[in-house]
Amino acid sequence: MTDTRDLLYHVDGDLVPASEATVRVDDRGFRYGDAAFETCRAYGGTIFAWDAHVDRLETTCELLSIDHDLSAADLRRRIDETLAANDLADAYVRLSITRGVQPGKLTPRSAVDPTVVVSVKPLPRGGVEGERVWDEPAIVRTVDTRRIPDEAIPAAAKTHNYLNGILARAELRGTDADEALVCDLEGNVAEGAASNVWFVRDGTLYTPTIEGPVLPGITRGIVRELASGADVPVSEGSYAIEDVLAADEAFLTNRTWELRPIASIDDIAVGGGPVTGRLSRAYDERVEDSCYR
Amino acid sequence: MTDTRDLLYHVDGDLVPASEATVRVDDRGFRYGDAAFETCRAYGGTIFAWDAHVDRLETTCELLSIDHDLSAADLRRRIDETLAANDLADAYVRLSITRGVQPGKLTPRSAVDPTVVVSVKPLPRGGVEGERVWDEPAIVRTVDTRRIPDEAIPAAAKTHNYLNGILARAELRGTDADEALVCDLEGNVAEGAASNVWFVRDGTLYTPTIEGPVLPGITRGIVRELASGADVPVSEGSYAIEDVLAADEAFLTNRTWELRPIASIDDIAVGGGPVTGRLSRAYDERVEDSCYR
Repeated sequence: MTDTRDLLYHVDGDLVPASEATVRVDDRGFRYGDAAFETCRAYGGTIFAWDAHVDRLETTCELLSIDHDLSAADLRRRIDETLAANDLADAYVRLSITRGVQPGKLTPRSAVDPTVVVSVKPLPRGGVEGERVWDEPAIVRTVDTRRIPDEAIPAAAKTHNYLNGILARAELRGTDADEALVCDLEGNVAEGAASNVWFVRDGTLYTPTIEGPVLPGITRGIVRELASGADVPVSEGSYAIEDVLAADEAFLTNRTWELRPIASIDDIAVGGGPVTGRLSRAYDERVEDSCYR
Repeated sequence: MTDTRDLLYHVDGDLVPASEATVRVDDRGFRYGDAAFETCRAYGGTIFAWDAHVDRLETTCELLSIDHDLSAADLRRRIDETLAANDLADAYVRLSITRGVQPGKLTPRSAVDPTVVVSVKPLPRGGVEGERVWDEPAIVRTVDTRRIPDEAIPAAAKTHNYLNGILARAELRGTDADEALVCDLEGNVAEGAASNVWFVRDGTLYTPTIEGPVLPGITRGIVRELASGADVPVSEGSYAIEDVLAADEAFLTNRTWELRPIASIDDIAVGGGPVTGRLSRAYDERVEDSCYR
């Protein structure tokens, strides 16, 4: 069920058809990927965990020194207008803030006239993604590409510099896998190309620490919280691929997938299980409580 | 002497005013910085070292698996048309090829409908840059930001993911420096944020090896060749900052600056000298021979 209508995007204050939604080639967002972004979910017309997105976006902009004057309310208004204009209640929402057009070249200026883009796609609750529906657990493969270390670009910044994840995904060509398991330079498990990784062993839930080059996912934060509420002990640390392979259960999280069990890693079956199931239900309840009441 | 007219850019086959030259926000070049680029110099209407640019662009596209069908002649035609339309002989030329708009999300598709952008700026020979004229040697400072290791993104790929260099330059705020000296994760000198680094000691020319995370600059390659022709021994290896600080001469290279002496690093004077001067003259002669005869 693909939505083929030309959706309306929000570009610098104007609602425009997606096919005509553009940024200048002189915009630093295009020239250098010099931009912060957030991927949000709208459920029943409400942005889930909006405050967490605002916090992370602020962190990204601080790390990149993109000193814009946009308030959270202003950004939210643009998102709400976009959802309303497209008559969308359940959607994928992408919000980007670029450093805009600046005179000169690479060195960023302090004075920023940001470019703000909101793009949306219908995404029914339950986990359908534009192109690929995840009605199956993820098939995961390890890749040679390593995560960028924090000393080069901090993982806490969610930016338009996404080639590292693209290179990881490109390694999956010709395989049946739909997510890459990426390690840090030391060979510890970091995350998926576009997801956080979790595994369960003897009732304890494990996930790589964000002290490593790991994005502090919003869904990750919620799942961590839900685990505490469900009396599932959580351990954050550094883990080898073998630890994940030997797990009783394993799953991935991101905004689009929510919790998605891992069927296999490098053809070794892992699968979901009771803890994954319990946390998935708790996540659904949290969405219900936050967005539908 | 700023050129304030609205220049014409070449976007996907059309010449359009820079202020209206745009790409779609759905273009992967904007979403992810998923694009290859080259920065060229036109001298007297001719692109200097065009073959070297074609080679490197091909390397970048191979590393990113951007399998476009564009011939070198086609790309050159777009550049030549842009220069002619703007009546420009001496110019800075930026050529970008993005992976274009694709269905789905992060995973790149094999079938590519690339977006091709040529942007230009007048740049008189002798080294004037849009914003900043380098009529002074560079003031350089070391920064905390480290180069991205090849295992994460190969340095041989010249891409729109330029935040690493931007973070390095942002560290210079509040100082008098105009270039950052960036080390690799091991603390060896890699390169400037947007230039290659060279130093001279006891008559030998040293530059960091591209076996480290160092862009194989086109100007770098030419200078290496010119040094051989001028019987200046060249050594490529791994060097500490102290090696550069103790040098008799030091300079930076890139397409815009050509050879630019380093006045100081972290307030320690270095400066150009006879070898830098000799190579600069040889470079000028090479430009003369290639573009004006």
